[in-house]
Amino acid sequence: MPESPIRKLVPFAEMALQNGKTVYHLNIGQPDIKTPELALEAVRLTQFKTLEYSHSAGFESLRKGMIGYYEKQDISLDISEIIVTTGGSEAISFAMGAITDPGDEVIIPEPFYANYNGFAIAAGVTVVPVNSSIHTGFALPPIEAFEEHITKNTKAILICNPGNPTGYLYSKVELEQLMEICIRHDLFLVADEVYREFVYDGFQHHSVMNIPGLEEHAIMIDSVSKRYSMCGARIGLIASRNKAVMVAAMRFAQARLSPPTYAQIATEAALQTDQSYFDEVNKEYIERRNILVNGLNQIEGVFCPMPKGAFYCMAELPVDDADRFAQWMLSYFDLEGETLMVAPASGFYADPQLGRRQVRLAYVLEKESLHKAVRILTAALKAYPGTLL
Amino acid sequence: MPESPIRKLVPFAEMALQNGKTVYHLNIGQPDIKTPELALEAVRLTQFKTLEYSHSAGFESLRKGMIGYYEKQDISLDISEIIVTTGGSEAISFAMGAITDPGDEVIIPEPFYANYNGFAIAAGVTVVPVNSSIHTGFALPPIEAFEEHITKNTKAILICNPGNPTGYLYSKVELEQLMEICIRHDLFLVADEVYREFVYDGFQHHSVMNIPGLEEHAIMIDSVSKRYSMCGARIGLIASRNKAVMVAAMRFAQARLSPPTYAQIATEAALQTDQSYFDEVNKEYIERRNILVNGLNQIEGVFCPMPKGAFYCMAELPVDDADRFAQWMLSYFDLEGETLMVAPASGFYADPQLGRRQVRLAYVLEKESLHKAVRILTAALKAYPGTLL
Repeated sequence: MPESPIRKLVPFAEMALQNGKTVYHLNIGQPDIKTPELALEAVRLTQFKTLEYSHSAGFESLRKGMIGYYEKQDISLDISEIIVTTGGSEAISFAMGAITDPGDEVIIPEPFYANYNGFAIAAGVTVVPVNSSIHTGFALPPIEAFEEHITKNTKAILICNPGNPTGYLYSKVELEQLMEICIRHDLFLVADEVYREFVYDGFQHHSVMNIPGLEEHAIMIDSVSKRYSMCGARIGLIASRNKAVMVAAMRFAQARLSPPTYAQIATEAALQTDQSYFDEVNKEYIERRNILVNGLNQIEGVFCPMPKGAFYCMAELPVDDADRFAQWMLSYFDLEGETLMVAPASGFYADPQLGRRQVRLAYVLEKESLHKAVRILTAALKAYPGTLL
Repeated sequence: MPESPIRKLVPFAEMALQNGKTVYHLNIGQPDIKTPELALEAVRLTQFKTLEYSHSAGFESLRKGMIGYYEKQDISLDISEIIVTTGGSEAISFAMGAITDPGDEVIIPEPFYANYNGFAIAAGVTVVPVNSSIHTGFALPPIEAFEEHITKNTKAILICNPGNPTGYLYSKVELEQLMEICIRHDLFLVADEVYREFVYDGFQHHSVMNIPGLEEHAIMIDSVSKRYSMCGARIGLIASRNKAVMVAAMRFAQARLSPPTYAQIATEAALQTDQSYFDEVNKEYIERRNILVNGLNQIEGVFCPMPKGAFYCMAELPVDDADRFAQWMLSYFDLEGETLMVAPASGFYADPQLGRRQVRLAYVLEKESLHKAVRILTAALKAYPGTLL
């Protein structure tokens, strides 16, 4: 048996109640936002008699539609440069498989999305973390820190932009620094951009596909799961202008036959979603973020940098051990019959100790719930036996 | 870049025409059978507002439904012993990941489903073929042939039952022989049983889950793609009574979050499909098989053993090279404006030379098309410059 690909197994909770308590799930990225109705309606209107495979790279009409979407983002792609995948997860797995052999290394700024570990382990690849600090808001670590970790086995640097779990948005300057190091050491730069639409405060998202000089090195991971709040579709995408990468990725795509057909139909329709949907959703997320992050920073001993994107924040808590604290809240604590589920950050660090006092919170619940969550956390931190307050 | 996971890339053809010719696609396993209407209708009737993730192991209601399906097949499973996957493909990939480390070996009787190679390569695992012969109808090779190939790195024997590409159905005696060797050498026996409903001539399918003594060694791969003619759903399943295997498989399941939601809804409904659907479909496949296989065996120089299951047959042709012949039929041959696309068998053998004169044909087209296919092949074999006739 291989080592566990995920150190923290936070179950996708189906329960609203645990031990008779109401539990606010701030631990997972399942938004409560409605899927665009036109996507759901397109599936309801299907009339085919046989649910067939699609092309292994996805329906051509969907791929063309996606290219149209990217054009609006000022990202110019050819149909040969994209493959539709079963979720962003599969796109990451194809990218790992396409650019590495077992024994290779991929450098990832930590904290990082825990499942990157899983896909790396499945590909026989070692994740080499480069630490980013909560005290800089998880900005890009100095380039020297990357250089220290580059070996002859290093094949790529992988970033999530905007970041899960940090909410950090890389600046153009930071991306150019990454470009330079990737070109100098002949590495791929893999950017997971599934949260690209969730960027706040007037900041702008810079795609890895738009860095001049990086064409042969850039691989973009994308997904419609969060963009259209259709996590259950399982539609993502891998894009690269590097032909060898796409040929290799296509082999993996053909091995698994095709991405899910219904989900492709829903996604193709979703591409017609009006900009007002995103404007409304982002307005909502900004309000939620402000409630949660400002609320957290008002709790004694809590520090939470303000994220510029995605819908997560990382908070440092005045506790001995965030794993234990999270479990304690579920098992032994309630405020008026309500408690909170959070994701302990140890799972987002290669060295779990680095995240010992941190948790990730997803602001995917309505505002009133987030107000309550802050109140619950405030009370819990006072009552917790391992509190450092 | 890793080596190509698939040596033969037979594209999923979207075309009905090539060079102005009508092409009969006997190369792929996309049946023309209708999906049970109740499955399609269940999706059309969905009313949710947000397309959410499911549990990583699949919706509980679906897993319970599947257990009910297996009960009818006299296979008794607990909900903890199954995980719903994104197609049988993902189930194979989870099985490989759960039971092997990079460098391990899996023994597979060849010819075998070409994509097994892809999943093995992705897991860093070496496929060790044990040759089965067209002249025995691809029966299980002698146990000594397996023993010769077992090393300290061998982790499993993988079979497809009934077989793609051979259509061979393993007997109870053969499965017991495999059981004995797996127990003696502490190997897993992984059985891909996605064609279990397609068994003909009064023969009976024996599941790997029903071999007493093999409980800790048996892993079943399944899929609804062919069973309900819903290949585009992408719903499969991995089952094992070995707890460690299921724990490891669950980690992979959690890394990719969840199987597609719409497809699970369709599948859960499909489980209610009446037995008459299968009876009708099998009657149709038997007629198709008889037309194709009997027709093939009437062509001079062609040998095609009669398959007992699935909807493929392997034929030996009087040609210098089946790859070249297949390409030649598409590019240079037609009979009254029509030609044939077949899958050269070289891709189903670890040593392509072994399949040099063989092709796989899928009898997934209506009877009239199969009659025509036999006529086209008869004429093509006469006209082909590399014919051995």
